Amino acid sequence: MNKETNYQQIIEQIHQSLLSSASLGEAANYIPELAKINADQMGVFVLDQHGQTYQTGDWQKPFSIQSIVKVLTLCLAYQKLDGQLWQRVGVEPSGTPFNSLGNLEFEQGVPRNPFSNAGALVICDVLMDLFSDPLAELLKLIRRCSDNPKIGTNPLIAASEKSKGYRNVALANLIKSLGNIKQDIDALLDFYFDCCSITLNCQDLAKLFAFLSHHGRCPQSGDQILNSSQAKRINAIMLTCGFYDEAGEFAYKVGLPGKSGVSGAIVALLPNEFVVTTWSPGLNKKGNSQRGLQFLEAFTTKTGKSIF
Amino acid sequence: MNKETNYQQIIEQIHQSLLSSASLGEAANYIPELAKINADQMGVFVLDQHGQTYQTGDWQKPFSIQSIVKVLTLCLAYQKLDGQLWQRVGVEPSGTPFNSLGNLEFEQGVPRNPFSNAGALVICDVLMDLFSDPLAELLKLIRRCSDNPKIGTNPLIAASEKSKGYRNVALANLIKSLGNIKQDIDALLDFYFDCCSITLNCQDLAKLFAFLSHHGRCPQSGDQILNSSQAKRINAIMLTCGFYDEAGEFAYKVGLPGKSGVSGAIVALLPNEFVVTTWSPGLNKKGNSQRGLQFLEAFTTKTGKSIF
Amino acid sequence: MNKETNYQQIIEQIHQSLLSSASLGEAANYIPELAKINADQMGVFVLDQHGQTYQTGDWQKPFSIQSIVKVLTLCLAYQKLDGQLWQRVGVEPSGTPFNSLGNLEFEQGVPRNPFSNAGALVICDVLMDLFSDPLAELLKLIRRCSDNPKIGTNPLIAASEKSKGYRNVALANLIKSLGNIKQDIDALLDFYFDCCSITLNCQDLAKLFAFLSHHGRCPQSGDQILNSSQAKRINAIMLTCGFYDEAGEFAYKVGLPGKSGVSGAIVALLPNEFVVTTWSPGLNKKGNSQRGLQFLEAFTTKTGKSIF
Amino acid sequence: MNKETNYQQIIEQIHQSLLSSASLGEAANYIPELAKINADQMGVFVLDQHGQTYQTGDWQKPFSIQSIVKVLTLCLAYQKLDGQLWQRVGVEPSGTPFNSLGNLEFEQGVPRNPFSNAGALVICDVLMDLFSDPLAELLKLIRRCSDNPKIGTNPLIAASEKSKGYRNVALANLIKSLGNIKQDIDALLDFYFDCCSITLNCQDLAKLFAFLSHHGRCPQSGDQILNSSQAKRINAIMLTCGFYDEAGEFAYKVGLPGKSGVSGAIVALLPNEFVVTTWSPGLNKKGNSQRGLQFLEAFTTKTGKSIF
Repeated sequence: MNKETNYQQIIEQIHQSLLSSASLGEAANYIPELAKINADQMGVFVLDQHGQTYQTGDWQKPFSIQSIVKVLTLCLAYQKLDGQLWQRVGVEPSGTPFNSLGNLEFEQGVPRNPFSNAGALVICDVLMDLFSDPLAELLKLIRRCSDNPKIGTNPLIAASEKSKGYRNVALANLIKSLGNIKQDIDALLDFYFDCCSITLNCQDLAKLFAFLSHHGRCPQSGDQILNSSQAKRINAIMLTCGFYDEAGEFAYKVGLPGKSGVSGAIVALLPNEFVVTTWSPGLNKKGNSQRGLQFLEAFTTKTGKSIF
Repeated sequence: MNKETNYQQIIEQIHQSLLSSASLGEAANYIPELAKINADQMGVFVLDQHGQTYQTGDWQKPFSIQSIVKVLTLCLAYQKLDGQLWQRVGVEPSGTPFNSLGNLEFEQGVPRNPFSNAGALVICDVLMDLFSDPLAELLKLIRRCSDNPKIGTNPLIAASEKSKGYRNVALANLIKSLGNIKQDIDALLDFYFDCCSITLNCQDLAKLFAFLSHHGRCPQSGDQILNSSQAKRINAIMLTCGFYDEAGEFAYKVGLPGKSGVSGAIVALLPNEFVVTTWSPGLNKKGNSQRGLQFLEAFTTKTGKSIF
Repeated sequence: MNKETNYQQIIEQIHQSLLSSASLGEAANYIPELAKINADQMGVFVLDQHGQTYQTGDWQKPFSIQSIVKVLTLCLAYQKLDGQLWQRVGVEPSGTPFNSLGNLEFEQGVPRNPFSNAGALVICDVLMDLFSDPLAELLKLIRRCSDNPKIGTNPLIAASEKSKGYRNVALANLIKSLGNIKQDIDALLDFYFDCCSITLNCQDLAKLFAFLSHHGRCPQSGDQILNSSQAKRINAIMLTCGFYDEAGEFAYKVGLPGKSGVSGAIVALLPNEFVVTTWSPGLNKKGNSQRGLQFLEAFTTKTGKSIF
Repeated sequence: MNKETNYQQIIEQIHQSLLSSASLGEAANYIPELAKINADQMGVFVLDQHGQTYQTGDWQKPFSIQSIVKVLTLCLAYQKLDGQLWQRVGVEPSGTPFNSLGNLEFEQGVPRNPFSNAGALVICDVLMDLFSDPLAELLKLIRRCSDNPKIGTNPLIAASEKSKGYRNVALANLIKSLGNIKQDIDALLDFYFDCCSITLNCQDLAKLFAFLSHHGRCPQSGDQILNSSQAKRINAIMLTCGFYDEAGEFAYKVGLPGKSGVSGAIVALLPNEFVVTTWSPGLNKKGNSQRGLQFLEAFTTKTGKSIF
């Protein structure tokens, strides 16, 4: 396999070719604040195992983290509870859209995985049980790992999502009725939407996820976030469940553990090699960034680097 | 990561400790011929990238390939049709047991992935369209790759499964009613059950799957079964869909692409490193070999080798 | 309620007005022999409690009984087993199309009601257990009640349905896999399709169902087919389950217990008052005769006679 | 049919025999205020077509109306909108429990019928659109028809249900997310729980429903609540959908249009003959009053009076 590893050249080439491609997708229109964002932006950042960085396009533009935060809330809970955590949420892909309620009734309130909205709500409930100020705890983790103390929430985004968050309110109440949420629902949803609104850029996000390609240890801060076995397991869950009902497609076409958010961001990583982040707000029908997916497919094809 | 790589010692240790562990599971009881097999057997075989082999226990005992054959029928169809194939079957995990019918009605007869029974039946239908003697074609592939010309079907097993195969008859007829099966159903089911009855041992199976850890090229015969990109994609589908509704659990605990069969066999592999096969007929509730799963979890933990 | 009770005049008026109405629906196209039939025919027959008859249009034209036979097979089984029968099949409406498989998996092979295809197959299985020649038994009942010894099956129709009966084969095999069918599936399906092919006309059908509006006693032959309580219960099941997933609509618009078949026939009745039959092959999207439904809605509106 | 019609004697006999029967069921335990009520009470009231009344047991004890109010809110909306109403809610039985969410996702937020909680919430939304004070409008109807101006809501019950109403909050939010609820959800739920808490006794309830056995005209007040055709249609919906997923069972065993509530009340009626109400707080597993069902089955058997 003599594939190119000149990351800078590769990401610039792919970036250029995508800018001229017609199909953009559309920014998430069910969240008013996200619908306002110009879909015609794209940033890319690669952080390799030696700390080298490669970047192109709008990699410094801030965006809200959205569902990508689910990986971090999961890590925070997993740190504390280890395997016990799986009594509250499963690790299986769901075969249904991210916000589906149907399965929950059959599964007695135990969401199939922590990256569905249902699963993420349960994880938030766990964190509110574990910490007196779970948002502060999460921000501490994020700021240390990304080495950017300025990262915080965006109240406008949080309020905008809450104003239209009927489906999440429905999920939280259904799970509560089935006994798997303990906290007050309003407080829980406030925390959940605050988490989703955390704002950063492609560089921050790449640094932030580096611990998952370094056996659980953050290379910037030196903090051991998870042990090696735990980090491997988070990667496995990202691979099987990280892209809603497009997880199989992403594994098939890209072949990296990763997670996407409706702001158009994607983070993916190859253990011991690199973290790559993309941001482009236009989404496909399944809610994943259209150009982000195209970029990553081209990136693993050109570099020949994937887990498979 | 200073993990042990003395495979022979590792597999013997794990094998010994599993023999003394109480919980065996039960051999598949819905197939009369399989129910007769003594569940208290276990074989292991490892084939590394340099052709070195490591083995222990009942690795020479023959068993029927069962659902593991679905990977090979898929490869045969993928060879010929490449991406076109995905018009007939998807690549997403299903979130339901391997023999479920419910989803098919909503999905208009296009099974979510080729490793559900529904998906495997569609792939068999495709092969009957492509080849005048698809079973001969499949056996040719299997014999060359495993370097064992004696491998063949077991008519007793095939007949036994057919005699109780109501669920598969139901699936085939449902898909036919939805327009995604073209062949005569009786002929299709005969072919399907013949495929499942193909009999080999742990060594054969490890050699047979080596092409998937060698970028599509069989190291024994030198045949290029798939191109590198295709091989990578088959591995991705094994990871997300290879263990029925325990795929997430397997990715989480073992972290290798793999496939199991109800005869108690499992094959798993790490690209560029090794293929490992286990056989132990006792199954857990989800239909996967209980000791096989335990072996593989211990194996990737002790060697520190997984894709994540 | 001073409504008209001059049945002859009423049925002629409605018949005339329907003939000029544009929308016909289409004859069942998934059964080749039924697809050939000219949809532009319509027959009506009313038999009142005193034996008076009223008829118009193509009431003498023969058609196959199709799903209406499910009422008669149910009566035959209910005669023998009374309440015991409900261990094999339920009495609840299903909320899904007549040939759906999805629910069966959750309900462990016990169909929700005897008028779904699944339920009718289980009833046929029961009859094959109870009688050495169940078809002869069924024909005896039909011939005596309709006072027409010439009624028989139509082998062409039966063969035509069997040739395309994939969905029913799927249902029978699924139920067998779940343990609620005992007979050989081929023999069962032959019996089932024979039943559906029984051929009669609007007059025969009205006479045949008169026992259900006479407390279980056939006014022609004097045979007590069911006791009064049983007859009442069959009527209740017709009302809640007789029109697939249009049962609520029929109860709401027509307000009579009844049963339809894909040949375009409908039978409906008002206890102690009348039986009315219609035949018009054009079906709506739910598989019920379009003109038949329109006729019956107009008929109960004009006569002011319904159970509600 | 020479059945007894001495209602007083019949209801006393059945009442006595039920008091000595062991199986009571349990009062609804998910609503704290209802769980407190002594399950060992039973009241019966019959109002015949000539205004004669028959009563026994605890017929004067007050209870909350609960789901029975869904018939009245439906009538209020149907009065104003007639057939237009069915764009917002269907008339088909659902085949699932009263508080299920699963179907709604497939049905795009249009509940299958107005007697599921989902359907009742949509009807409440319609009423809030139609009237500035819908609760006053509803109470006016109830007070006039039952001829009891003292009937009102019970704030304790309403608050108790609201405090545990997670499932209803989930339903309302899910429907809102699917576009079929227009009002503010908190206000809607307040109205909904107020409706359910309306408190009356067996006599009030029998008088209140008399208009449905009198072609839509209340015999006490003379008000024409619905026209004759509308009244008939409400009866049809009660028959097919009035008892959650036990509607078929009720039609089969009792054979009357009716509606139950989790307070243990049931109202049933035979057009042109009588209204019968029962109240006994012990519920069966499907949420219907156990003794109430037994009473009504015995009542229609002994009197020989049902719609079938």
